[in-house]
Amino acid sequence: MKVAFQGEIGAYSEEAVGGLYPEAEISPRPNFEAAFEAVSSGDVDRAVLPIENSLFGSVHQNYDLLREHDLNILAEIQIRIRHQLLGVKGTALGDIRKVYSHPQALGQCRTFLKSRLPDAEIIPSYDTAGAAKLVAEAGDPSQAAIASRAAEAEYALDNLGVDIESNHANYTRFLALGRPDANKEDGLSPESLETGQPKTSLLYAQKENVPGGLFKSLAVFALRDIDLFKIESRPLIGSPGQYIFYLDLDGHEDDERVRNALHHLNEVAAMVKVLGSYKSGRVLD
Amino acid sequence: MKVAFQGEIGAYSEEAVGGLYPEAEISPRPNFEAAFEAVSSGDVDRAVLPIENSLFGSVHQNYDLLREHDLNILAEIQIRIRHQLLGVKGTALGDIRKVYSHPQALGQCRTFLKSRLPDAEIIPSYDTAGAAKLVAEAGDPSQAAIASRAAEAEYALDNLGVDIESNHANYTRFLALGRPDANKEDGLSPESLETGQPKTSLLYAQKENVPGGLFKSLAVFALRDIDLFKIESRPLIGSPGQYIFYLDLDGHEDDERVRNALHHLNEVAAMVKVLGSYKSGRVLD
Repeated sequence: MKVAFQGEIGAYSEEAVGGLYPEAEISPRPNFEAAFEAVSSGDVDRAVLPIENSLFGSVHQNYDLLREHDLNILAEIQIRIRHQLLGVKGTALGDIRKVYSHPQALGQCRTFLKSRLPDAEIIPSYDTAGAAKLVAEAGDPSQAAIASRAAEAEYALDNLGVDIESNHANYTRFLALGRPDANKEDGLSPESLETGQPKTSLLYAQKENVPGGLFKSLAVFALRDIDLFKIESRPLIGSPGQYIFYLDLDGHEDDERVRNALHHLNEVAAMVKVLGSYKSGRVLD
Repeated sequence: MKVAFQGEIGAYSEEAVGGLYPEAEISPRPNFEAAFEAVSSGDVDRAVLPIENSLFGSVHQNYDLLREHDLNILAEIQIRIRHQLLGVKGTALGDIRKVYSHPQALGQCRTFLKSRLPDAEIIPSYDTAGAAKLVAEAGDPSQAAIASRAAEAEYALDNLGVDIESNHANYTRFLALGRPDANKEDGLSPESLETGQPKTSLLYAQKENVPGGLFKSLAVFALRDIDLFKIESRPLIGSPGQYIFYLDLDGHEDDERVRNALHHLNEVAAMVKVLGSYKSGRVLD
């Protein structure tokens, strides 16, 4: 099994791949489009991609790509984003003069950096894993990177600061995607196979100029006592007043209740796309 | 009037400030918290902050800060994010050997950079405006930055590539925030005063273990024919099954229909916080 993800070896996405497909051969891709294409073309078997973050919201780009491609959601996992301060073997915190990382990670660790390394030069990098690689290659004990546990292991660096992010409530939810004929359980870790009730993700567009259209579309689920785990409206750019809705609901698309609700939704919506039914995933905390 | 924003002089946020408060003295702050504190403490009169982006979703951090602070939304504006390739005066595209910008901007301009500057070194920076400042200060015709029109003007740079982002459907919605006693119209540009129907933003939490709770909470608006412009659920971290909802609705909180709906919502919700009523803002395209 080959699994694509966006980023470098040692990226946070790689932790998500490891949690879902521990035995897989990993295949880093430079961007989300390339990861989607890799699965669609058969070059890899799965892609594991971020869909929402607890601080930064939904990744609309990946919802757009789900709309455009004929791939199914097979599984999900949530990863807590824990930033580590990494230096070469034997380095002490007091040796560090330069800290490299992605600007977002540097921002999230500002409090630690200000109090513990007030004189260090802070240098932005393209990504967290790339910063760790750079520090490992330079072999200079005055340099450190802020990156993941996966990067710590990959580049055999010492951990000089554990979980140094200010806001610990930083979680990213990842989806595993495959072609429609994929066997959902293939290659999944035992923990991922065990957990969770089935849930279904879909997106739909309302019909134009239907008063109370949102309420009517949600009624199809409420009338059948189907709980919703996520609802989000997204304005369609260039079409004022028109929206796409993202929905996660309790149940499998083959359940009779859900099947009936989706049939009913097709009556009141202009477009419905079911993205997949899969087990609620665990949280890697 | 003094207006805080997050970022450097020349940041995209500064374009939002200019669209809303063209006469104001601007006050850059290093992060969102600092901008909120500046208004709360009376150090500035307004803060203009991003609340959602068409590619990257809602800025949950600012919703969290809205929940924690006693500030009101006074106005909104949408800004199209247009990336410019900026060099020192007299530079030609063929001279460029190094391109500086924030990794996200570099990623959004990857196609342009690959086709027009395939041999240039791509160097990440902390932010777009900082990259423009660096290029202006170096005065080296082999360097360029990717940044905003505001940065082009601020640092008197030449534009070597107009709107070079691959996806032009990149908009950020900004909110103007003030203390509860603020005069909503003070300092707003004539265009911002003219436009738009009143809308109201609020957030609320459902009561626990109420079956169909979301549907019931939306019924309070549907029963009164109040249209919704935005709805988004957000899981409460550490409280599985509990959610906060973000809502934008058609109408002013002082309208009788809206007042009744909010009264009804308080019956069915565990917490309701009205963030403000303000005019629908224009789009700076």
